Amino acid sequence: MAGPQEEIDRYIEDHLPESLDDLKRLARIPSVSSKSEGIAEAAALVAELLGQAGFAARVLPTTGHPVVYADSAAEGAKGKDGASVTDDKTLICYNHYDVQPPEPLELWESPPFEPTERGGRLYARGVSDDKGQLISRIAAMRAVRAVTGGLPARVKFLVEGEEEISSPSLEPFIEANRELLAADACVWEFGGVDYAGRPQVVLGLRGILYVEFRVRTLARDAHSGEAHNLPNAAWRLVWALASLKGPDERICIPGFYDGIAEPGEAELRLLERMPSDEEFTRTQYAVRAFVGDHTGAEYKRAVYKPTANIAGFGSGWQGQGSKTVTPAEALAKMDFRLVPGQDPADLTRKLRAHLDASGFADVEVRVLGGEKAGTTPPDDPFVRLAARTAEEVYGTPAILKPLIGGTGPTWIFRSALGTPIVTLGPGDPESKAHAPNESLSLARFAQGTRHMARLLMAYGGEGN
Amino acid sequence: MAGPQEEIDRYIEDHLPESLDDLKRLARIPSVSSKSEGIAEAAALVAELLGQAGFAARVLPTTGHPVVYADSAAEGAKGKDGASVTDDKTLICYNHYDVQPPEPLELWESPPFEPTERGGRLYARGVSDDKGQLISRIAAMRAVRAVTGGLPARVKFLVEGEEEISSPSLEPFIEANRELLAADACVWEFGGVDYAGRPQVVLGLRGILYVEFRVRTLARDAHSGEAHNLPNAAWRLVWALASLKGPDERICIPGFYDGIAEPGEAELRLLERMPSDEEFTRTQYAVRAFVGDHTGAEYKRAVYKPTANIAGFGSGWQGQGSKTVTPAEALAKMDFRLVPGQDPADLTRKLRAHLDASGFADVEVRVLGGEKAGTTPPDDPFVRLAARTAEEVYGTPAILKPLIGGTGPTWIFRSALGTPIVTLGPGDPESKAHAPNESLSLARFAQGTRHMARLLMAYGGEGN
Repeated sequence: MAGPQEEIDRYIEDHLPESLDDLKRLARIPSVSSKSEGIAEAAALVAELLGQAGFAARVLPTTGHPVVYADSAAEGAKGKDGASVTDDKTLICYNHYDVQPPEPLELWESPPFEPTERGGRLYARGVSDDKGQLISRIAAMRAVRAVTGGLPARVKFLVEGEEEISSPSLEPFIEANRELLAADACVWEFGGVDYAGRPQVVLGLRGILYVEFRVRTLARDAHSGEAHNLPNAAWRLVWALASLKGPDERICIPGFYDGIAEPGEAELRLLERMPSDEEFTRTQYAVRAFVGDHTGAEYKRAVYKPTANIAGFGSGWQGQGSKTVTPAEALAKMDFRLVPGQDPADLTRKLRAHLDASGFADVEVRVLGGEKAGTTPPDDPFVRLAARTAEEVYGTPAILKPLIGGTGPTWIFRSALGTPIVTLGPGDPESKAHAPNESLSLARFAQGTRHMARLLMAYGGEGN
Repeated sequence: MAGPQEEIDRYIEDHLPESLDDLKRLARIPSVSSKSEGIAEAAALVAELLGQAGFAARVLPTTGHPVVYADSAAEGAKGKDGASVTDDKTLICYNHYDVQPPEPLELWESPPFEPTERGGRLYARGVSDDKGQLISRIAAMRAVRAVTGGLPARVKFLVEGEEEISSPSLEPFIEANRELLAADACVWEFGGVDYAGRPQVVLGLRGILYVEFRVRTLARDAHSGEAHNLPNAAWRLVWALASLKGPDERICIPGFYDGIAEPGEAELRLLERMPSDEEFTRTQYAVRAFVGDHTGAEYKRAVYKPTANIAGFGSGWQGQGSKTVTPAEALAKMDFRLVPGQDPADLTRKLRAHLDASGFADVEVRVLGGEKAGTTPPDDPFVRLAARTAEEVYGTPAILKPLIGGTGPTWIFRSALGTPIVTLGPGDPESKAHAPNESLSLARFAQGTRHMARLLMAYGGEGN
């Protein structure tokens, strides 16, 4: 039977050019959050596009960049009067309109804010992360509404403007607007296929504690001929870092592993079923041996180990050739990726206590960011729905990932709104998010849009 | 009795303006060796000035920048026909015509290559290190010759053009020209007074082993969300560095301290007599505690300890704020200051063996420079002569320093020519050599020149 789903799919295909025009309009705005550029303009356009798709859309202030909030069932929404609108189930889409800085500019083959099509892909900063994901969802809403005359569930959008700078205003905004944002399920900002074209549904993101270390031993750099007497900031930092983790990869901060919630049976089963990207990663990064010689099941299981990663360090002379200097100051940046059960505030205290107890009271610690891990139980009905509809669209079973290595504010949604969270969308491993020549596959855009529409239809149809 | 010495002193004072004109001419040439700029021009001017002072001067090729060689007794030298020329004693002056880069330019109060007088000092790159020292010596030679009709000893000059880039061509040049350069005593390139205006005679310089470490773990930087599997180059380097020296400051490379020649009785007596710059240094660098809590005699004695100094390191993200990256590559630079008895080639092998044995075969070591320590025995008659004439000129006893923390190619002169080496000259602690606003005290210039002339007269007069 040619049901509404086929019609919706056809509508999406037929209206692809209009959707891409919307995306190009949005991608031309250089909404780089770290420079606070193009923010108001991008927020206004997102609200306009959501309005055109039948939503009551508003630009709401936060303590930082504004949020675009949209609701299919609020006063002013078209769907309010639509036949099939229902209020008993609410889906919220979390997206963002801000982008990463485009630098280094010289590596772009076409200008980062002039969207350009080449070989079946659209190139511009943000076309994948996250403007393409957002426009894809809006396209799905339009298609469902056009074919069925309304939406089968209430849909909300929360589109923030600070995702690329760690969402500093999001937690207070959500806490202050729990009622407004109340929902039963959430579709996360990113989603798409893996390197083999299989749809992925991510159920958990790790947390993070990001810190900066600084040591100063001298008023200014000194000639290294006095190194027998003048204390060296670089050495102080090396020793302090070495006290945190040795070559055995065990993190030495007392209490660091306390309270960790180990993965359950369901998570371990998913891990086991998950295809491994071990060989792909080994080749891509030309890795001789992974950390701890991880391989096979251990390689996959390692995502449940919290990490202590040096993101960078610097001190003294780093230029060509030799300069004989005793550095007065040294700097390091570290991110600790946290697993369920760990709390960045608690670990900050433990880190400070460890440094003090190890003789490194002179090492200053500044916290640049902290988030907890956030996970959705694999047996949630919404997860099953996302997986089933993915398989229908992609013709191959979805890969359910109980936890991935990265971080995002899922925990805020989980704790403040209590929704299950899944991922879906037009992304693929060629997207180069955060890098020069970011792009979006036009074929994956249509597929991701179809998946969004299908999930919405299935979600609205469930139990009705 | 108003002997020739008083006449020489007066000649030096009277002809100060001409000497400063020579210095300004030379300082206007931006002979930055690391950029190979102005090299030929500076060498030609040095040869011209030495020629005017009665020397047979030649620009000689090396494997790098040319050397200016001058001799008061060679064919073409005026002194060859002078009455008081003697060939039985030869003094060699070691100097250099190259300078450090002037950067950062914005910190200069007057342009670095436009010599400018202010408040009794002359400002320009190189006026202290080493063009002022060289011109002072030439002025001394002129004065002695004008007053006495010749030089009381044979004098040679070796003026190189690569001192600021670690003299890479000097050793082969000296080895290949032992006969040409043969001498009985040497005056080193730098010299002058300490912060209290006391003349210093330095008798020894430490050696050096300068190395660069590199580690690469990945083909390119990775998202730190994969840090549980992807090896981090910054960590590898931290652990490798920490294996070289711990907070107890003991260097852990097996055999590092083997064969060290401890200072003798005479050196220790000099050390004891030496005034300490401990409080001056503590204040200047705002040091809370010196390395190993050195103070008093230990602070002075520490120059006899070899060092392992991190001159710099760098990896990953060092900019503002947070970036979550697992660095693919990490770099560090280290200089080891060596004491008598240590050999940089031997220590390079021991360093490599230690890294290999400690599991750091992946850490690449590149040697950027190596020199042995070079010291002159405190009881050498030439040392006593330098000290006595210093006291005559400055009216206060000279401070004899058996060893200082810095490095220079004294060991080549010591081993190839066998000369005792002393320091004297117009330098003072305000000179800011290697830094912006390098300068020379005009009063110290006259004093340093008088010292050079007096030492030469005394040296020539000895045993005659």
